[in-house]
Amino acid sequence: MTQASIITIGDELLIGQVIDTNSAWMAQQLNKAGIKVLRRVAVGDIWDEIWKALDEESKHADIILITGGLGPTADDITKPLLTKYFNGKLVVDDGALQNVKYIFEKVLDRPMIERNLKQAEVPDTCKVILNKRGTAPGMWFEKEGKVYVSMPGVPYEMKGMMDDYVIPELSTHFIFPHITHRTLLTAGIGESFLAEQIKDLENSLPTHIKLAYLPNYGMVRLRLSSVGFNRVAVEKEVQEYFETLQLLVKENLVTNLDEPMEKVTGKLLVARNKTMCTAESCTGGFIAHLLTTIPGSSAFYDGSVVSYSYKAKKDLLHVSKALLETKGAVSEEVVIEMAKGALAAIQSDYVIAVSGIMGPDGGLPDKPVGTVWIAVGNNNKIETQKLYFRFDRERNTQLTATNALNLLRKFILSDEVVTL
Amino acid sequence: MTQASIITIGDELLIGQVIDTNSAWMAQQLNKAGIKVLRRVAVGDIWDEIWKALDEESKHADIILITGGLGPTADDITKPLLTKYFNGKLVVDDGALQNVKYIFEKVLDRPMIERNLKQAEVPDTCKVILNKRGTAPGMWFEKEGKVYVSMPGVPYEMKGMMDDYVIPELSTHFIFPHITHRTLLTAGIGESFLAEQIKDLENSLPTHIKLAYLPNYGMVRLRLSSVGFNRVAVEKEVQEYFETLQLLVKENLVTNLDEPMEKVTGKLLVARNKTMCTAESCTGGFIAHLLTTIPGSSAFYDGSVVSYSYKAKKDLLHVSKALLETKGAVSEEVVIEMAKGALAAIQSDYVIAVSGIMGPDGGLPDKPVGTVWIAVGNNNKIETQKLYFRFDRERNTQLTATNALNLLRKFILSDEVVTL
Repeated sequence: MTQASIITIGDELLIGQVIDTNSAWMAQQLNKAGIKVLRRVAVGDIWDEIWKALDEESKHADIILITGGLGPTADDITKPLLTKYFNGKLVVDDGALQNVKYIFEKVLDRPMIERNLKQAEVPDTCKVILNKRGTAPGMWFEKEGKVYVSMPGVPYEMKGMMDDYVIPELSTHFIFPHITHRTLLTAGIGESFLAEQIKDLENSLPTHIKLAYLPNYGMVRLRLSSVGFNRVAVEKEVQEYFETLQLLVKENLVTNLDEPMEKVTGKLLVARNKTMCTAESCTGGFIAHLLTTIPGSSAFYDGSVVSYSYKAKKDLLHVSKALLETKGAVSEEVVIEMAKGALAAIQSDYVIAVSGIMGPDGGLPDKPVGTVWIAVGNNNKIETQKLYFRFDRERNTQLTATNALNLLRKFILSDEVVTL
Repeated sequence: MTQASIITIGDELLIGQVIDTNSAWMAQQLNKAGIKVLRRVAVGDIWDEIWKALDEESKHADIILITGGLGPTADDITKPLLTKYFNGKLVVDDGALQNVKYIFEKVLDRPMIERNLKQAEVPDTCKVILNKRGTAPGMWFEKEGKVYVSMPGVPYEMKGMMDDYVIPELSTHFIFPHITHRTLLTAGIGESFLAEQIKDLENSLPTHIKLAYLPNYGMVRLRLSSVGFNRVAVEKEVQEYFETLQLLVKENLVTNLDEPMEKVTGKLLVARNKTMCTAESCTGGFIAHLLTTIPGSSAFYDGSVVSYSYKAKKDLLHVSKALLETKGAVSEEVVIEMAKGALAAIQSDYVIAVSGIMGPDGGLPDKPVGTVWIAVGNNNKIETQKLYFRFDRERNTQLTATNALNLLRKFILSDEVVTL
């Protein structure tokens, strides 16, 4: 089976200054096209290390995708290295030159300097890949039956090149099998218990179907994967096992698609033609942010009051001063008032309100860091939940958001039963 | 110089289902301790691939840190593999067994099953690393002068082990040099122009000091790095070059620390004992989220109205219906009203308001996707800016947030000059 390796180049990846999001996106696109990624390697802007990585990865893989190190500054050495690696010499490419000029004159509307024109130089041993979104051209090399593709590290530029050229061109060059993944999401059950529930299915899986457990933030995703040249048979077989899997975990099943909790809750609302709003204290707009990352979220999401200060809680959500003073901002009473206040102000069908202490500071003897109150509901009914997380600020915030969205999801489902 | 490789294990990394944030964090911690990371490799849950990665990385590096594949389910094969790789046999470790029991009984408060107890088994050829935050123990192996450490892939558990045991233990085992990085942030100037401005400095740098350019979201970070066994001399030399660098880019300098824009703006406010609020339409709470990721942000941040719907803009921010109908939500007039409405409702010293079209849908002939209006100001004065981004939803949102925070930062600085 044809396999790929991804090499990402840049010192920033090895000192932890930048999180590599490119590789994950590239791997997704390659998988969709039937290309299995065998390894991902990150190396610094160091001549010998890049050279060695090219040598090593070409031993393992048929396709080597490279990102980074193509900028106009001296720390970017990928292009001279590839020129030498593939025994070429640098020449100006007319198409790339026109593109650099076009980007500066028409898109950036900025003057151009000599250094920018240099970006139109490419080794004469490559096919040039047009970069519609930037000035650094991509490069396609072939050597001993292997394909090497070099792209910029800027995610937006790399993505354009992958979609427009690299994936279609690879699919012409090689014949790939069909890869399928089916993922479901469970909540409220640990990985080990889940494994016990589905162990008979797991033991009965043919060896070419892989089952994976992905635990995260109090939820577990289960994924079945398979591959083959008979597209219909591959899909049909995995579908049958996937249906059995859904039945086995049905008590804890959130969705049978690979989608996040905010999308599940959003889709529930859209299907019922309802909207929601949020009143966020401790999560500071993170729930609003998650919901609005979904394109078209204005169909189900009206807005949020991020009431970080007491003042905002009183003025915008009409939480009573007495309650704030006697019970404190992190209390069942206040979170209920916040929910009611948001419903009154924003006039949505459903609401989520959260108040808690995310840390590292702000803990109290009776309310340690990690204490969170959640309220969800509508104009008829508000339900609350108290949670206690033992993690850092970031993880406490994410757990609060996911739990609140799941609580609202369950409320909407039970609300429907009552209404019917 | 002692060097490290990081091996991350998991199919999810190679199909792009999960973004690897562990490696970046680990690299940061290793750098702080004086350990240079040479390579990072990701491989799937495949016996031969993991084995090969161990063989290859130990050729390059003295320290091999491994994460992932230690869960209680059948897809996790790291532990049996390491048992064989280091010629050991699996035995129950008493400390690990007590820890599993403790975690289930005291922390999770959940019943335990046989499968969980299995997690206390470790190869008899390793030193066991206590996992205070989970059930899978870490493992420390030594072979031919190299150190191999295996940790769980769950970020929170891995981080605890690194801080409590791995970094201190490595620092006892090896003698590391001092690594220093100094980073500054510029805005409003392209990478090539920056390079021209500082080329004399760049050419005069000794070879052991590296200069790197990190362009991102309309800003460029510049980083100087050096390493050596004379801690004081290393710091002093880099500091001198760094001061020159700051002078050369002073027109565009945002901060001389490696910190994000939201932190720079937040610190400005704290220093002046002022607060801010936000009124967010298109960014959907993302600016609020960025500001509240900073521990202690309640000192300068009061809250946000995320007015995703027309209704929320009218009711919470008192934007006039007539204006929304004649000018549309994405207009200078509306974003000014939003800013004034938020100031009136939340009573902060400063405000940011944004309204735009993030895409992929919602564009209009005169307002294409990517059109954004920003307003920043206080009760005396509001300044506006119209921007036009050509990217995808995620990048448009991030660019809007960063530009808005930068605009407020400049407003606060100029506001001060006027006041004086």
